[in-house]
Amino acid sequence: MNDCVFCKIIDGQIPSYTIYEDEYVKAFLDISQATPGHTLVIPKKHVANIYEYDEELAEKVFSRIPKIARAIQQSAPDILGMNIVNNNGELAYQSVFHSHFHLIPRYSNKDGFSMTFQDNSEKYNQEAFEQIKNKIINSLEA
Amino acid sequence: MNDCVFCKIIDGQIPSYTIYEDEYVKAFLDISQATPGHTLVIPKKHVANIYEYDEELAEKVFSRIPKIARAIQQSAPDILGMNIVNNNGELAYQSVFHSHFHLIPRYSNKDGFSMTFQDNSEKYNQEAFEQIKNKIINSLEA
Repeated sequence: MNDCVFCKIIDGQIPSYTIYEDEYVKAFLDISQATPGHTLVIPKKHVANIYEYDEELAEKVFSRIPKIARAIQQSAPDILGMNIVNNNGELAYQSVFHSHFHLIPRYSNKDGFSMTFQDNSEKYNQEAFEQIKNKIINSLEA
Repeated sequence: MNDCVFCKIIDGQIPSYTIYEDEYVKAFLDISQATPGHTLVIPKKHVANIYEYDEELAEKVFSRIPKIARAIQQSAPDILGMNIVNNNGELAYQSVFHSHFHLIPRYSNKDGFSMTFQDNSEKYNQEAFEQIKNKIINSLEA
C-alpha cells in the first residue's frame, strides 16, 4: 500500500532497527519503546488486521514469534515477563493499519506497559454463557 | 500436566463453553468475560509460555486464530475492535501457566479491558536503539 508506513519500512524507504527478517516477516524495534526491547513483528504482505489473514499467512508470521520472543527474553537479565499484543481497530489501540504484533518485555509492574481485565464472571449465568457461545459458533459455521 | 486447569478443560474433567476444537487447539469462553465474547485459544499440548513453542506448534495454534477472530467479530453487531493478548509470566498478568491467547472483542473505550503504552521515543537516541537491537540480534544468533 502506497501510503502505509510499515510497507515503507519493509521496502526500505523508511529506516528501522531490524531484529529479524525473512521472505515473509520483518521484526524491528517499536520506535515508542514502551519498554526497552519493545519489538514489532509484521507480515511483509499488507493485511490491515487479524480478520484479513488466511491460515497460511498466520502460520508464517506466527511460527517466527517464539524464537524472536526467546531472543528478546534472553537479551537482558532483568526481563521478567512478556506481553504479546495484537490490536485490531482504532478503538482497540491500533494506530498503524498494517497488522502487527507487539512483543513487550516486562521489567516490573511499574514499567511502560499495563493492562486491565475486568472479572465479570459473577454477572453471567449458564444461559448467558450458552447464548454467547452459540452466537460465536453460528458465525464460525456461517 | 496433572494439576493444570487448562489440561483438565482439554480432557473434559472441567467443563467449558467450547467455541472450537480440533486435534491441536481448543477455544472456549473465558469465565471472566472481560468483555462479552472474551475467548481463550489454547494448544492441547501443555506448554507454559511462548518460549516453549516450537515452530510447528506455533503454526498450528496460530493458523486457527483468524477464523475464530472473524467468528467473534461477526457474532455481535456492536463489536468495534479486538485485542489479541498472550501473557507470559506472572508479572505480565499470566495466571494460568498453560499458554493461552485471549481474544477480547471491544465495544467501547469504557468496556472491561484496557491497555496503556508509554511513548518513550524521545528518550532514545540512535546509539541506544542500536544497542538494544544488537543485544537482541546476538541472542537470536546464540
